[in-house]
Amino acid sequence: MALIVHKYGGTSMGSTERIRNVAKRVAKWARAGHQMVVVPSAMSGETNRILGLAKELMPNANTAAAMRELDMIASTGEQVSVGLLALALQAEGMEAVSYSGWQVPIATDSSYTKARIESIDDQRVRADLAAGKVVVITGFQGVDANKNITTLGRGGSDTSAVAVAAAMKADECLIYTDVDGVYTTDPRVVPEARRLSTITFEEMLEMASLGSKVLQIRSVEFAGKYRVPLRVLSSFTPWDIDINEEAKSGTLITFEEDTNMEQAVVSGIAFNRDEAKVTLLGVPDKPGIAYQILGAVADANIEVDVIIQNVSHDGKTDFSFTVHRNDYSRALDLLQNKVGPDTGAAQVLGDAKICKVSIVGIGMRSHVGVASKMFRALSEEGINIQMISTSEIKTSVVLDEKYMELAVRALHKAFDLDAPAAA
Amino acid sequence: MALIVHKYGGTSMGSTERIRNVAKRVAKWARAGHQMVVVPSAMSGETNRILGLAKELMPNANTAAAMRELDMIASTGEQVSVGLLALALQAEGMEAVSYSGWQVPIATDSSYTKARIESIDDQRVRADLAAGKVVVITGFQGVDANKNITTLGRGGSDTSAVAVAAAMKADECLIYTDVDGVYTTDPRVVPEARRLSTITFEEMLEMASLGSKVLQIRSVEFAGKYRVPLRVLSSFTPWDIDINEEAKSGTLITFEEDTNMEQAVVSGIAFNRDEAKVTLLGVPDKPGIAYQILGAVADANIEVDVIIQNVSHDGKTDFSFTVHRNDYSRALDLLQNKVGPDTGAAQVLGDAKICKVSIVGIGMRSHVGVASKMFRALSEEGINIQMISTSEIKTSVVLDEKYMELAVRALHKAFDLDAPAAA
Repeated sequence: MALIVHKYGGTSMGSTERIRNVAKRVAKWARAGHQMVVVPSAMSGETNRILGLAKELMPNANTAAAMRELDMIASTGEQVSVGLLALALQAEGMEAVSYSGWQVPIATDSSYTKARIESIDDQRVRADLAAGKVVVITGFQGVDANKNITTLGRGGSDTSAVAVAAAMKADECLIYTDVDGVYTTDPRVVPEARRLSTITFEEMLEMASLGSKVLQIRSVEFAGKYRVPLRVLSSFTPWDIDINEEAKSGTLITFEEDTNMEQAVVSGIAFNRDEAKVTLLGVPDKPGIAYQILGAVADANIEVDVIIQNVSHDGKTDFSFTVHRNDYSRALDLLQNKVGPDTGAAQVLGDAKICKVSIVGIGMRSHVGVASKMFRALSEEGINIQMISTSEIKTSVVLDEKYMELAVRALHKAFDLDAPAAA
Repeated sequence: MALIVHKYGGTSMGSTERIRNVAKRVAKWARAGHQMVVVPSAMSGETNRILGLAKELMPNANTAAAMRELDMIASTGEQVSVGLLALALQAEGMEAVSYSGWQVPIATDSSYTKARIESIDDQRVRADLAAGKVVVITGFQGVDANKNITTLGRGGSDTSAVAVAAAMKADECLIYTDVDGVYTTDPRVVPEARRLSTITFEEMLEMASLGSKVLQIRSVEFAGKYRVPLRVLSSFTPWDIDINEEAKSGTLITFEEDTNMEQAVVSGIAFNRDEAKVTLLGVPDKPGIAYQILGAVADANIEVDVIIQNVSHDGKTDFSFTVHRNDYSRALDLLQNKVGPDTGAAQVLGDAKICKVSIVGIGMRSHVGVASKMFRALSEEGINIQMISTSEIKTSVVLDEKYMELAVRALHKAFDLDAPAAA
């Protein structure tokens, strides 16, 4: 008997028929002897619908008072979901009870629309589980110290599920979603991409932050911090699939590097074309110049990703960084009309037609020559590298965007990811 | 400066455009210097929609556990409403904050779907009012001692508004609704019916319990118990109507019999055709016979309204009572097959084609001859009276239903209610 947390997304909760299927699946797990906590999202489309009404009344709800009301409104979607799922479980013959965030309670700070969980009191939930009940808890929301309802931001139900699992020291947290796990790369780009049966949370964090949309990044951070075994698996399997088969499906996000296992050096290839590059050429190289440039960019509320400063020659240096494409024209304008003149840069350049491709793998820590193998594979395809950025378990390159698919396929093959899954 | 509670129904909250109008009206009152608390219902249709989903999952949700979930679900309609109205008020330039029942808190018992309010802690609301905020509170719901959400039953928002007004000792509670006040009788039956500018709460209670649907009866009871000045007025007037005119409009439900005023003996004529009559003829008259009959009816969960027992002759008596038409066939079956044989009644009769017409007036306490004036008026129209029931401020008669409109019109005229309003 284990304590298991299930999380279901809005699509899985999208109709009473689907809610009934979720209930049957959860009942199957409970009947197999597990203590079950379920965290469902709002029915798909519901949160958008009610926040749309709010937007009609106040197009820019950006004061704390207004955002408090948005949370009051948005949190109801999940409250309806938990009530409906508890009813569906009761109709299946299970004892079931639902709780809102404030009823558990899930305590958060007061940052409306993007609150952070501070603590979870699991006393009430634990008593229900001991009494044989399935407990259904609202995702996405909590309550602050002054009894105001808060929400965790979009996708926050993943984080809620992981946080509940952490607080209750659950044996596993299963995130049911519309993909059947984490892949070596996007199968739409590389048909040979394969599902990983396990991935370490650090790799998952890099994959998630690099644009792999399977899990909300905060939920992965939470899982890492509290060492919650997290499994991403498909909600599209029939509810009556064999439970042992289901329990092994998807991708398990682990915390131990299993040294007994033949660990691949690179676990996956992440990529995106959301970024643009700006460059200051011939900047006088003096102490504080990086701060002078990036401080001005930060003041303009523009987030910077990859930063490259070349070694200087003749007292001048070149300085490049990438920003989100949505910020590209603002960033270019800022450099051309303010930062460039202020720093005495010789020239300002910009390029929105770039992409970023990254190899991610915990094995990179202990293996040398991984980056050079990457560069060779790209070179063999005649792909020019514009920028390089490395971290302990990741190497990213910035390329002309027209090479993106080619680069991803070449790297997927070079690091033996095309091979059939071992387990 | 006064403390005023406004209550708006689902129709008034039916769209963002209408919510904006409610906000403008409330803002007008606040800008006139009043401290404002607003209790809006759910947007019209919303509670039915979500409870419809619940019904799909569990057609007969009659256990406590299931009804708890119904309340969890149903309470969200009002939570969305208060958030939207608070936003609309903020968009109007007012400071505004919304609260759910549990946030105030409004403490209730644990009778899910029909909870009763036990107490209201007004500390938080009072602090907001003192800080110049408009406070928007969910109607229809509260929280029990174990932090479970409860609802008060359909129409419960009227009760919430009155309860909040009572707890805060508000100067007046204004119920905005789709009629412009309480009438001497239904204007669809008597075109000469006129709006009452005042009515005592006891009269209102009789009118409400006799089928006048303006206010939920529990809210009137609450207003009576805590002496809350209650005004029923139209939500269809333009929001920018002169506030002094608006403050005097509708019908005020009062607690003082104003002896200086020319008080009408009869304030209104109530009627319904929801009932049916059953009769036991020739019942042996012995002690306990009424209990024997009505106990069996109560055990079958059938509610009884008018009860008549004639004086006995030859040791036999006739016993009649009315029940709701929905219970008629069950009641008749019970009498014919069980109660009749058990009591040794000679015959069982039934008639579903009846109506009940009542005159209501606080003046009946101090005036003699009111009932006989009623009987004469009916007699002059050739209407036969089947049953008579009286209370301190009400006289009801049961008639053949075909005479209902005729009887109402005759009584309306006989008691001078056709005359134009004095004020």
